[in-house]
Amino acid sequence: MDRTAAQALDAADPLRALRDRFALPDGVIYLDGNSLGALPKSTPDRLAHAIRYEWGERLIRSWNEADWWHASRRVADGLTPLLGASADEIAVADSTSVNLFKLMVAGLRMRPGRSVLVVERHAFPTDVYIARSAAELFGGRLRFVDTPSDLPGVLDERVGVVCLSQVDFRTGAMWPAGPTTALVHGVGALMLWDLCHSAGAVDVDLRGWGADLAVGCGYKYLNGGPGAPSYMFVAAELQAGLRTPLPGWHGHADPFAMSPEYAPAPGVGQLANGTPPVLSLLAFEDAVAALAGVSTADLRAKGVGLTGCFIDLVTARCAGVEVVTPREPDRRGSQVSLRLEHAYGLVQALIERGVIGDFRAPDIARFGFAPAYSRYVDVWDAAAAIADVLARGEHLAERFRARSAVT
Amino acid sequence: MDRTAAQALDAADPLRALRDRFALPDGVIYLDGNSLGALPKSTPDRLAHAIRYEWGERLIRSWNEADWWHASRRVADGLTPLLGASADEIAVADSTSVNLFKLMVAGLRMRPGRSVLVVERHAFPTDVYIARSAAELFGGRLRFVDTPSDLPGVLDERVGVVCLSQVDFRTGAMWPAGPTTALVHGVGALMLWDLCHSAGAVDVDLRGWGADLAVGCGYKYLNGGPGAPSYMFVAAELQAGLRTPLPGWHGHADPFAMSPEYAPAPGVGQLANGTPPVLSLLAFEDAVAALAGVSTADLRAKGVGLTGCFIDLVTARCAGVEVVTPREPDRRGSQVSLRLEHAYGLVQALIERGVIGDFRAPDIARFGFAPAYSRYVDVWDAAAAIADVLARGEHLAERFRARSAVT
Repeated sequence: MDRTAAQALDAADPLRALRDRFALPDGVIYLDGNSLGALPKSTPDRLAHAIRYEWGERLIRSWNEADWWHASRRVADGLTPLLGASADEIAVADSTSVNLFKLMVAGLRMRPGRSVLVVERHAFPTDVYIARSAAELFGGRLRFVDTPSDLPGVLDERVGVVCLSQVDFRTGAMWPAGPTTALVHGVGALMLWDLCHSAGAVDVDLRGWGADLAVGCGYKYLNGGPGAPSYMFVAAELQAGLRTPLPGWHGHADPFAMSPEYAPAPGVGQLANGTPPVLSLLAFEDAVAALAGVSTADLRAKGVGLTGCFIDLVTARCAGVEVVTPREPDRRGSQVSLRLEHAYGLVQALIERGVIGDFRAPDIARFGFAPAYSRYVDVWDAAAAIADVLARGEHLAERFRARSAVT
Repeated sequence: MDRTAAQALDAADPLRALRDRFALPDGVIYLDGNSLGALPKSTPDRLAHAIRYEWGERLIRSWNEADWWHASRRVADGLTPLLGASADEIAVADSTSVNLFKLMVAGLRMRPGRSVLVVERHAFPTDVYIARSAAELFGGRLRFVDTPSDLPGVLDERVGVVCLSQVDFRTGAMWPAGPTTALVHGVGALMLWDLCHSAGAVDVDLRGWGADLAVGCGYKYLNGGPGAPSYMFVAAELQAGLRTPLPGWHGHADPFAMSPEYAPAPGVGQLANGTPPVLSLLAFEDAVAALAGVSTADLRAKGVGLTGCFIDLVTARCAGVEVVTPREPDRRGSQVSLRLEHAYGLVQALIERGVIGDFRAPDIARFGFAPAYSRYVDVWDAAAAIADVLARGEHLAERFRARSAVT
């Protein structure tokens, strides 16, 4: 494959027009949409209107006039097809950490007599911290798996909830969600999927998997902006038994009754609790609209194509680099992780060249391929840049020895 | 008092220049800053830069370059003098509802052997809902007071935490915080203040009161924008025993170690948990900067003056209306609540005239006087409008019989 072939793949890309909806800076190859998604072109004007007019001019009236009150509902509706959910199975509120707490506790409550929560030891850290806290407060306990393949050894009739990431944030490995959900159901437990590193880039199919619960974040492949609110999924069949541990007034059936008695809003409505951060929520709404009508199958096919090309090019051109991400297309997400001793230096040297990936300690360089706006020429140019950095030893430079706190 | 006298009071107002920092719409008298604060004039440009440049151009790099990572710390530092706190006693994250949960559970954990949480039955509803859930998960239980004056009857050595609002959201009544805190300490319990309806308008003095814990919201008198993140206070002396029930990766001592073991960030740092909604947080930062250097004593003195004039004018001119808010200056916040049968109609008729207050079921019309931008002429004009609406019977109009869902 040469650069011309990459350009030809871009020309044939059914999603090629989608990139025009995003404001990507000149001179940058952005391969970190798995950490912070790109800015939709429409968002600055949408937010300027929300700030100057809705907040500044109309003030409190905008809760009704601009229907801020239902903004989280609108985002949820927009996410529904991207997640393979049915109507009214998605709610949007709070951060992923807070939402994991809600659904872990709510899930354990749905399985009386079972108090074990299973979580991956190497999951994104928040998942583990929150699981430990949820189990402690619930009077339950944790069981760890080193990898989802260890599940059969820990599943029994005491397990209430299993929480796994569909795509691993470090390695980009994707776990087969349907069969895993079935395995968990086999012992009567509930399956809670963390979709942070998958939704918007892979074909999430919550109904198809038979999933019970899910959470995910809005600011990665969904482009909702830095720290965008998070979403939750509760399968329709389970909603009658849903009881959140964080009942707030926005999740009340009749918030303006201002009653001291809590009556949960129907379905997933109770998963709202406090007043949401409206500006961040409206940015997320705009971003979800930018993906309206986009086929998740097309997104997934392109993600497989981009990551496959990248793996091939790096393998062919970059000696001494281990591709950590599985080579089987159905076992990887839309991210490729490379392991090398000087991964931090590699990421920094690439950033100096305008190729933006990120580093995860101690030795992983991550490259995310957002199918909504990443191109095959980006893959080609990034792989060429990596090969060149390594050949020249730029990643070994003294100035890259001290790691910044945030990368 | 006539309108000229009101204008003279405005001319003599030591805070008169502060109003210029806010973008208030023409033709509107805004008396709902106790629900959603006004837009600081600097915020639209700050947010436009954050969206177009920091997010759009610099993308993931802005976590370091624009120091999004410490935005919540900067907001907290800006709030410290407004709350009478010492350095490093304030954290900013999440919604008030979520933060109440954190501090109620954390407070109960700080008082081993005590499992009773005391809360006002008629507090803002979220406080009650969250208290019930926190008590349930903690294995404790609730005791209610109808008013804080009932506290002596419920305080004993089983009480771990007492949660009260400094200013009541319905009535505008302000409770004496110092003596109440001392009363609670007298039985060895911790005092958690809800400052949602006070901070930014009254002279909150958490250190002076000897308060243990506090929460409050950013979007009322603090003008942080719709759904702005919430803040928390934990007295320095208690921070060594702080243990949040919502431990997330942003509250970890070394987040990018990505360790499965949770090690809390020092002090109140652990009260962060997930990635914060950066756009909403940056708006809040800008709003706190708009109040930088402003004396809380000046804010309070003006609030007392505005509400006092309003009470006098309404009492003199509006027969059939009950002033629910205490007439003693030190017993009221910066809000005046009127009770009348057709309160909803009154609020709506006033909105049609450009005088914006709000309605709380079943019979309360609320008028908030934000000392940062409300004027004595606003008080005079609003009282005149109320008298005129009532005299003409505009509030009895048929079109106001059906209440909107959100007011």
